Amino acid sequence: MKAAIFNGPRAVETGQRPDPVIQEPTDAVVRVVRGCVCGSDLWYYRGVNKHAVGSIGHEFIGIVEAVGDEVSSLAPGDFVIAPFTYSDGTCPACQHGFQSNCTHGGAFGNGTSDGGQGEIVRVPSAAATLVKVPGSNFTDEQLSSFTALSDVMCTGYHAAVSAGVKAGDTVAVVGDGAVGLCAVLSARKLGASRIVALSRNPARQTLANEFGATDIVEERGDQAIEAVIRLTGGAGVDCALECVGTHQSIETAAGITRAGGMIGAVGFPTYQDFNYTTLFWKNVGIKGGVAPARQYIPELLDDVLAGRINPGRIFDFETDLDHVVEAYAAMDERRAIKSLIRVGTIR
Amino acid sequence: MKAAIFNGPRAVETGQRPDPVIQEPTDAVVRVVRGCVCGSDLWYYRGVNKHAVGSIGHEFIGIVEAVGDEVSSLAPGDFVIAPFTYSDGTCPACQHGFQSNCTHGGAFGNGTSDGGQGEIVRVPSAAATLVKVPGSNFTDEQLSSFTALSDVMCTGYHAAVSAGVKAGDTVAVVGDGAVGLCAVLSARKLGASRIVALSRNPARQTLANEFGATDIVEERGDQAIEAVIRLTGGAGVDCALECVGTHQSIETAAGITRAGGMIGAVGFPTYQDFNYTTLFWKNVGIKGGVAPARQYIPELLDDVLAGRINPGRIFDFETDLDHVVEAYAAMDERRAIKSLIRVGTIR
Repeated sequence: MKAAIFNGPRAVETGQRPDPVIQEPTDAVVRVVRGCVCGSDLWYYRGVNKHAVGSIGHEFIGIVEAVGDEVSSLAPGDFVIAPFTYSDGTCPACQHGFQSNCTHGGAFGNGTSDGGQGEIVRVPSAAATLVKVPGSNFTDEQLSSFTALSDVMCTGYHAAVSAGVKAGDTVAVVGDGAVGLCAVLSARKLGASRIVALSRNPARQTLANEFGATDIVEERGDQAIEAVIRLTGGAGVDCALECVGTHQSIETAAGITRAGGMIGAVGFPTYQDFNYTTLFWKNVGIKGGVAPARQYIPELLDDVLAGRINPGRIFDFETDLDHVVEAYAAMDERRAIKSLIRVGTIR
Repeated sequence: MKAAIFNGPRAVETGQRPDPVIQEPTDAVVRVVRGCVCGSDLWYYRGVNKHAVGSIGHEFIGIVEAVGDEVSSLAPGDFVIAPFTYSDGTCPACQHGFQSNCTHGGAFGNGTSDGGQGEIVRVPSAAATLVKVPGSNFTDEQLSSFTALSDVMCTGYHAAVSAGVKAGDTVAVVGDGAVGLCAVLSARKLGASRIVALSRNPARQTLANEFGATDIVEERGDQAIEAVIRLTGGAGVDCALECVGTHQSIETAAGITRAGGMIGAVGFPTYQDFNYTTLFWKNVGIKGGVAPARQYIPELLDDVLAGRINPGRIFDFETDLDHVVEAYAAMDERRAIKSLIRVGTIR
């Protein structure tokens, strides 16, 4: 089958991998309809984080092609959304709704496992992992939003849920990437009455406003902290959603959160030098991590199908598997917020 | 007036300080009935943390002797509990219920301000700070519990509230000092169905059991983590209450909390090297800080007056202001969990 192959920093190409087949009775094989490029893929592409040579891409939606003998809840022809990690649904972490910490789980597209940037994916623990989408004849807009549910929308939502955003809250979102924009949408979904988006990019500001941002702050670092504190009458925000993962972004989140507030942290943490005690003295809490997308997809899928949210709007570049290198380049050069990859058709 | 004077590590003595008087129209002057020695006072005594020479002691209850012109909600003769910090009640932090982060607040017994280990205290922002106790003819047991509300019971409760302990939860308490024991009592108050106390001291184990602990773990460090994980069927606890503040205790809390769980942190943090990212990868959150005692006292006072909680049980040594040095020595030598200081009488 055709699939994106990661050969090292700035060396992603379209190549061939063996056609996946059912290996375990709990597997499914899914023919991919849409994949996409994640901000974390970009970090591998740039050589900031390491990635094994081989398959890449952990976000995809598609059609079930085959199921193992023990998979009774799915059948060939089902349209499914894959969360970006697979999980068994039975371990203590899964039972508590944190499938991303599943004892027997793992990631798609890690070099060895099949990736979402490919034509076909073998999905372990398929019954517990895949979420079936009811209906048919989905529009391109719906397909984009389903694809966003594979990771970024769930990750943005995880920031908001982890911070405990509730009706009437003042929320600030640090980071205007796809996850940050989805965090804005999530804060609105949870009823925040004021949503401050930190962004200096006009296109992203526009989308942030469409998604529910009430205020835009263009400053960075200490100036951003001062601006948000000023905007909130000296108090700071109830919740800061940290969607970047750098030292500056976590310090900004810490600086803008009011005494007793919460930080929802989902940016891949590169801030090893961040000292929690600065939060302690402000009574500010922090919670987050790798989003349990599997937990959130059913609820967010209802929102998409009902037209209440449209996270697929974050895709502003599209290509196909033959041109996957361009999907990376568009994001690398900041021409795109997030690149969609058209892999297969619905029928 | 007579008061404890901190002259340096292991040099606390009974001495004299000027009689406090009303200085601001928002002040009250309170004649102390009971004071006590805090675990943090012990750290000053031992030279672990620095303390200014002069007044010491931040916990006290007493009788209002005089009020400034702008204090209308209190009158001479009122029996009051002082939270361990004063606060104005109007700044954003106070309005959000985090009076310990008050912009215009401060601490009692910091070397300069009057301390609770003394006969009389000038209380700034008295109307917003002091909590009036209804009734009279209080028993010694009630007076002890009122004194516990000045700090340790509120601090233990803050750990449980910050961790979001709720009915049915499995909770572990790291630390068997007065705060840790109060955290056990708080977890029970909030409906935890299983409460694991980490303690190897028989007297403290007994009190932990009285306060609601269902399990005792005597191990420390990695062995403690293994024991708690085993006790919880491999999952870990929903909430860990960190009531010590050392590197080992925060690592223990991190190690025993399940994926998606919460740490409530109230131990004075000496773990500057603790790396939050270890929590991120487990989806474990952490919240806590200096307890807003003023926020919790009214609710906990209702519980004390109704006989539902008896946090005064943590006092297992009593003396008077003339023998304050013995109050410190008893705790330093671990002969006492917490020392009560009888300063004045009710009438």
